[in-house]
Amino acid sequence: MTYCVGLCLDRGMVFMSDTRTNAGVDNISTFRKMTNWDVPGERSITLMSAGNLATTQAVVSLIEERSKEVADRDPDIMSAKSMFQVATLVGRTLKEVIAANAVMVGQRADSAFNATLLVGGQVGDGEMRLFLIYPEGNFIEASADTPFFQIGETKYGRPIILRAYDPTMSFEEAIKLLLVSFDSTIKANLSVSPPLDVHIYERDSLQLGRTFRIDGDDPYFLEISNGWGAALREAFTRLPPFSFDKYD
Amino acid sequence: MTYCVGLCLDRGMVFMSDTRTNAGVDNISTFRKMTNWDVPGERSITLMSAGNLATTQAVVSLIEERSKEVADRDPDIMSAKSMFQVATLVGRTLKEVIAANAVMVGQRADSAFNATLLVGGQVGDGEMRLFLIYPEGNFIEASADTPFFQIGETKYGRPIILRAYDPTMSFEEAIKLLLVSFDSTIKANLSVSPPLDVHIYERDSLQLGRTFRIDGDDPYFLEISNGWGAALREAFTRLPPFSFDKYD
Repeated sequence: MTYCVGLCLDRGMVFMSDTRTNAGVDNISTFRKMTNWDVPGERSITLMSAGNLATTQAVVSLIEERSKEVADRDPDIMSAKSMFQVATLVGRTLKEVIAANAVMVGQRADSAFNATLLVGGQVGDGEMRLFLIYPEGNFIEASADTPFFQIGETKYGRPIILRAYDPTMSFEEAIKLLLVSFDSTIKANLSVSPPLDVHIYERDSLQLGRTFRIDGDDPYFLEISNGWGAALREAFTRLPPFSFDKYD
Repeated sequence: MTYCVGLCLDRGMVFMSDTRTNAGVDNISTFRKMTNWDVPGERSITLMSAGNLATTQAVVSLIEERSKEVADRDPDIMSAKSMFQVATLVGRTLKEVIAANAVMVGQRADSAFNATLLVGGQVGDGEMRLFLIYPEGNFIEASADTPFFQIGETKYGRPIILRAYDPTMSFEEAIKLLLVSFDSTIKANLSVSPPLDVHIYERDSLQLGRTFRIDGDDPYFLEISNGWGAALREAFTRLPPFSFDKYD
């Protein structure tokens, strides 16, 4: 599995992804699942992936190669004029890679080769946008009603985002929120694990923002992980007590 | 989907189940998923079910009918001498019902007819025990290391149980804990919904304990539901702030 979140804030976007890949619990590895492209002053694009690693690596490699083919007449993500075009290109590439493998196992697409992607960023005069791309190559866009997307193991870490997310929060608060969400997921699902990759995109900056990696033994991550257990228990204690009186 | 939890405490067991069944989001109904049997002074048995409703209703009906067949030489759950025997009987019945439908769709069992059960209680001199029964009819038992089982939509509501469960907690605290867990699940998954059925079994009482139903508009449930959002946000605020200093 995998866990990646893309979060839209008033001041920008926060991307966070884990690094565990596995083919069975007895075969785990560490791979980066976040790729960033930028042309300072013109565009910043972040892609995160969940699903078959061969598929997602092929998608990233194809996108990279095509962005360097000088004579190519088709637009690539480095020349596409909008985030919508970027998402369309990424979706088409994803569908192409999955189809290439699916042919090998018959006419029906084998879901074993599937992947789901998050693509977010900003191009030129356009708005900052975040898309979730399906294996079929089509996609949906985040909005004020649903200002974040998760892919991979989404369930354990969802309740805290639903409860504590606020579009006006600072980048620091958003990172804290995502670390709580990742910690709950990591505690419950062995196939999600640090180190965690982070990219903070500042709205209208049109360039790669802060990127860094948070290790499993990072002091702040451990503080959040341990502190959240205690904080949850305390919050639970403060809730009003149940009484049988009204139910007998 | 469904959400049911069976929780072992030092002083007894708490069972809670939702009541929503669905065949698509446009076809929802309310069905009780908890069945209790008791012979005061001799046994108390609680069964909760997740999965195909036709399967789980057939299992309960078969168990009921067989417990009333006077001349039957095979033991039924009302005469079985231990909780292990009860679990074995229930598992065998589940496997039989699934197999009866699976034959109709070919040699391979169609997972559409599957169900998973929780069976807990106490018989005679035996210990209080809790089992999770798989569609194949085999089962696992809760222990001090894993003192609770969830079936159905287990993920959203799991982190809070992992963090706040304590075997010494009172029944009241356990109900509060389960309501928080159910609330998180209900908020995230449309296929889980109140009313919630509850059974509190007191260790060594060998009879049905308190049973009651908590409706969606129950004042205490609403208090927990609303209070938990605020409590979570407050707990989140109290966690130490993130600072970019160490990551640049």
